[in-house]
Amino acid sequence: MDQLKERILKEGKHIGNGILKVDGFINHQVDPVLMNEAGKEFARLFKNVSPTKILTAEISGIAPAVSTGLHLNIPVVFARKHKPITMPDQVLLTLSPSHTKGRTVELIVSPEYLGHGERVLIIDDFLATGMTILGLIRLTEIAGATIVGVGALIEKTFELGRERLEKLEIPIHSLARIKSMEDDTIVLY
Amino acid sequence: MDQLKERILKEGKHIGNGILKVDGFINHQVDPVLMNEAGKEFARLFKNVSPTKILTAEISGIAPAVSTGLHLNIPVVFARKHKPITMPDQVLLTLSPSHTKGRTVELIVSPEYLGHGERVLIIDDFLATGMTILGLIRLTEIAGATIVGVGALIEKTFELGRERLEKLEIPIHSLARIKSMEDDTIVLY
Repeated sequence: MDQLKERILKEGKHIGNGILKVDGFINHQVDPVLMNEAGKEFARLFKNVSPTKILTAEISGIAPAVSTGLHLNIPVVFARKHKPITMPDQVLLTLSPSHTKGRTVELIVSPEYLGHGERVLIIDDFLATGMTILGLIRLTEIAGATIVGVGALIEKTFELGRERLEKLEIPIHSLARIKSMEDDTIVLY
Repeated sequence: MDQLKERILKEGKHIGNGILKVDGFINHQVDPVLMNEAGKEFARLFKNVSPTKILTAEISGIAPAVSTGLHLNIPVVFARKHKPITMPDQVLLTLSPSHTKGRTVELIVSPEYLGHGERVLIIDDFLATGMTILGLIRLTEIAGATIVGVGALIEKTFELGRERLEKLEIPIHSLARIKSMEDDTIVLY
């Protein structure tokens, strides 16, 4: 998606250790128009796999997931990292290592909103090591639902997430793919 | 907003202590079509105060805030509860008591995305005690920006948030106002 690629090249910043700062339009400040365009594009890319639900992880996955859900007209579930008091005692929970946090986080979904027969499309902000997305896939499998696709706004190809997901044999689409980041230079495909 | 009121009466659940569970369409599973309608309605209600930026608090404020931002064509900033590594060392931070969490949470905004001259519209999922929204207002004031309005999807009028905000003399709109919740009965205005 050209619009997204331009923003990354213009405003994105490699702050070291392979971490891309895109706080000006995705991770802290959000550009709703850009998100809407991304949602439209994901809807176009995944329409043919007939998803019935979108699954994402709080926090930064919410905006692109909800935009995609709007254009596919299906609900969005965001996995929580802390169990809120409104959630039942029996939940679906998996652990996932967080690269940017330097520790393991919990991903929790209530079985009320993810179950047998659902066709789940995962949408997230980043596809990097793929660990968060693999966590969301485990939750989908525990729930007895089927995973039908994975979409990410930005893919850091050098962290090999796509390779970790390839055995699933599902469509994987990212809207901007980063080839390398060295010092101040971000190179896209 | 009738569509929202109907969903609350149909699917909302008072789980005790004045806590309304709306996890099926706002707080865990999100209905993107409903959010889009809410965003359209907020845009209509606040257009005349000419906001230049929307401020919300992660996590559940993001969906309605981004929908509103789309219809007003302005960016959205979500205050973080934990400082991510992409944020500069010097931040805007305030403490806010969380009713549902039973403890104080931090609300953090980077001065990169909130500054002098901005006209800030606050959008959140709930207006209850008003404590989170007062925290967002303090952040706006520290940033030297002007607060021009407050919008919430659901207002629990009996927790008196609106009274705490009234001295600001800005428009406050909520799309569904709850008069009382006793046992299983939710009464709306």
